[in-house]
Amino acid sequence: MADRDAAFVKEITPRSEHFSRWYTDVVRRAELADYTPVKGCMVIRPYGYAIWELMQQSLDRRIKETGHVNAYFPMFIPESLLDKEAAHVKGFAPQVAWVTHGGDEQLEERLVVRPTSEAIIGTMYSKWIQSWRDLPVLINQWANVVRWEKVTRPFLRTTEFLWQEGHTVHETEAEAQAETLKMLGVYQEFAETELAMPVLAGEKTDSEKFAGAAKTYSIEALMGDGRALQVGTSHNLGQNFAKVFDITFQARDKSVQFGWQTSWGVSTRLIGAVIMTHGDDSGLILPPRVAPYQVVMVPIPRGDWRETVLPHAERIKRELEGHGVRVMLDDREEHSPGWKYAEWEMRGVPLRLEIGPRDIKNAQVMLVRRDTREKLPTPMNELLGRVAELLLEIQQALFDRAVAFREEHTLTTTDRAEFDASFEGRPGYVVAPWCGSTDCETQIKATTQATIRHLPLDPPPASGACIQCGTPGKVDAYFAKSY
Amino acid sequence: MADRDAAFVKEITPRSEHFSRWYTDVVRRAELADYTPVKGCMVIRPYGYAIWELMQQSLDRRIKETGHVNAYFPMFIPESLLDKEAAHVKGFAPQVAWVTHGGDEQLEERLVVRPTSEAIIGTMYSKWIQSWRDLPVLINQWANVVRWEKVTRPFLRTTEFLWQEGHTVHETEAEAQAETLKMLGVYQEFAETELAMPVLAGEKTDSEKFAGAAKTYSIEALMGDGRALQVGTSHNLGQNFAKVFDITFQARDKSVQFGWQTSWGVSTRLIGAVIMTHGDDSGLILPPRVAPYQVVMVPIPRGDWRETVLPHAERIKRELEGHGVRVMLDDREEHSPGWKYAEWEMRGVPLRLEIGPRDIKNAQVMLVRRDTREKLPTPMNELLGRVAELLLEIQQALFDRAVAFREEHTLTTTDRAEFDASFEGRPGYVVAPWCGSTDCETQIKATTQATIRHLPLDPPPASGACIQCGTPGKVDAYFAKSY
Repeated sequence: MADRDAAFVKEITPRSEHFSRWYTDVVRRAELADYTPVKGCMVIRPYGYAIWELMQQSLDRRIKETGHVNAYFPMFIPESLLDKEAAHVKGFAPQVAWVTHGGDEQLEERLVVRPTSEAIIGTMYSKWIQSWRDLPVLINQWANVVRWEKVTRPFLRTTEFLWQEGHTVHETEAEAQAETLKMLGVYQEFAETELAMPVLAGEKTDSEKFAGAAKTYSIEALMGDGRALQVGTSHNLGQNFAKVFDITFQARDKSVQFGWQTSWGVSTRLIGAVIMTHGDDSGLILPPRVAPYQVVMVPIPRGDWRETVLPHAERIKRELEGHGVRVMLDDREEHSPGWKYAEWEMRGVPLRLEIGPRDIKNAQVMLVRRDTREKLPTPMNELLGRVAELLLEIQQALFDRAVAFREEHTLTTTDRAEFDASFEGRPGYVVAPWCGSTDCETQIKATTQATIRHLPLDPPPASGACIQCGTPGKVDAYFAKSY
Repeated sequence: MADRDAAFVKEITPRSEHFSRWYTDVVRRAELADYTPVKGCMVIRPYGYAIWELMQQSLDRRIKETGHVNAYFPMFIPESLLDKEAAHVKGFAPQVAWVTHGGDEQLEERLVVRPTSEAIIGTMYSKWIQSWRDLPVLINQWANVVRWEKVTRPFLRTTEFLWQEGHTVHETEAEAQAETLKMLGVYQEFAETELAMPVLAGEKTDSEKFAGAAKTYSIEALMGDGRALQVGTSHNLGQNFAKVFDITFQARDKSVQFGWQTSWGVSTRLIGAVIMTHGDDSGLILPPRVAPYQVVMVPIPRGDWRETVLPHAERIKRELEGHGVRVMLDDREEHSPGWKYAEWEMRGVPLRLEIGPRDIKNAQVMLVRRDTREKLPTPMNELLGRVAELLLEIQQALFDRAVAFREEHTLTTTDRAEFDASFEGRPGYVVAPWCGSTDCETQIKATTQATIRHLPLDPPPASGACIQCGTPGKVDAYFAKSY
């Protein structure tokens, strides 16, 4: 026990000192993920995967409540199918994994491991859709995808990752556009409610559009270091894929029409976003709704605690679990309470419950909030209600704190000097007028490293001249440095 | 409407006429799965995937209740890792997909797409496990796997399929053996309770063992054509993988020991097993617990039924759903009730609920069982209770029928002539003494096409001399033709 505790909880780099080192320290020390001998591929460890499962459950419910069903399409896509949509193949071919042999035999046609599934799903939709009565088709899949990446970081950018991808077909352009925005809204509500992560929803510029889409929308979250992270996208594909994959239907007026499509996805990147939105110098802070353990119980090992304290702790655990609370009772002998406090703080458990012989005598326990570190002596008979309340309070407090952070880190300006200074100093969003040209966008990126994260939905008139070229502004864009 | 109905429900081959054609007809017509342009790979369509989701939920709950947690390991395995365990690579190398290029670059080392994950998981376990305190490790993953197959059939054998694979490490051989049998038992209980599918649990002979395992156990189900199907396996891996992947731990006595491992899995093959266990000439029969729709409601379109009948139907639907029943209300205008009856029978919905103007006047509905076709006029005020009862009855009736079928198709014999005749005539299991030699097993297969499905757990003494060589029998083995 002593020699294990001597090391206490192995150090993580403080977040305030070096954000990206803090990030990788937390990912590994909290056992969310680990590196593997497979270049660019991570293992999602049980603690990290439990977060993903909670995200999946609550997002899958929303996807189904909006009328979608799940399916599963092949992971392999023949080269000739990927090649069909010119912009699509141009965007993805440089970063796909190629399967060239099956067993001992060389394949007649190479297969790509899906980087996204428009090509294979479009091919099947062409077969399944004949009439307007077959529409809309509203299908989602949960799957792994592969994009060959040169520089990888756990959860944020890995060669293989997990995601869901929705693929829908509609009778009209208007319906497809409505679906695109509906799912963007679902993502926003999901991120804000479940992950306590405020996001901005907007439209991508042409240069940041999905390869093959007519329009791409995204939700973006601001990380603790002031850089933006794209955490979900929703694409209006127009008829681009329908035309190359021949997705046609007999319309109500008996004419033959191409379908209007959308696709939309979020991935395990969301786990990285949760880490970087809420964490602090001591490690993770998990929003209660996606915390694998919402309460960690640490019994104080005085005297014959296994006979006196532990049975009480086990009873409380059962009661909390009976009320739907996810509880870890850490009764390991080889670690001191102090070690356990630091360990579970680092792992982000929202509430700690300490219970010792004296607490039992006084019919109370000590609750400690992870976010504020507040200590709350709580009478035993109020415990269930208090824990439920506190979990709600913590969820809300994390959201409010992130909103406040974003507000503090959003600058609106029409002044180029202020614009530039902002990206050198404290980071965050800068909202500034833009003329709409890709040239200006490119030049701004070259000088400031900032990109247009997106344009607001239903934007008001521009507040001034383009921050780059001085010609009349078209819209106020959201600029930020990003992951 | 008329021209659609003219075709009625497109024919499926009767099961009694041609079992395997019936199977593929049902898979495609019921929209469970479809063929794709990717050789050997299927799409699992929403109706089929909904069955898989129900299976996943109930099995995942059991896996967690027995102390396991989920994780996700990379899909790619470097060739050198697969090569480490000799029997393992020999078993799997001929049937793996090889990734040789990432983007434009040839890889320094080829990657296989996982056919199973012992190699990559073993590599990580070696890193994570140091002390007996780290044991047992009880991890499961839900994933896709790829095995290059020459002859494929939807769900039963496809190049890519979905499964779960548990991978555990234990301190002692006895614990690993207990885990192996525990998970075999979990599979059996799951298959019998959820899928209404009776299975036999037993041990595989050496020739049918998993590549690299010390012992392989399986559950086997008897399909409607009298052939056996392996529907789940549980392997005691001994220390075979621990030794090559260097999974060691400091034991309680401070010595360094190799871990004892197990692995176990079931796959989307279970969907094929459900189809072939319960279906009939009219198509699928789904056990209520895994039926995407447990009740299909067909309103009778007389007069102004949209105003008179439909609101009642919608109210009943909401009530049933409020009690946790999965309901499809088929209010399509373009199909007649007769068409819908045939369609949903073919798709295996356990209960049909017909409701028309006269039923509403009489405050009743008509329920029709899919399994027995029994028509049950049911007073409206008894409907909720009656539906719940009937779903339980149907689940039990399907199980009982499958048990009776297996009993009728199991022959116990010590007579070689009877043994041979049985495999020419009516198929099923033949239980017969076997001396334990692989030679005899091979020769029996050559002459009868039957293989030993497995040996019973805790077998009684053999009932006679080996059915092949006549030397003293070691055990009565279960022989069958299999998929």
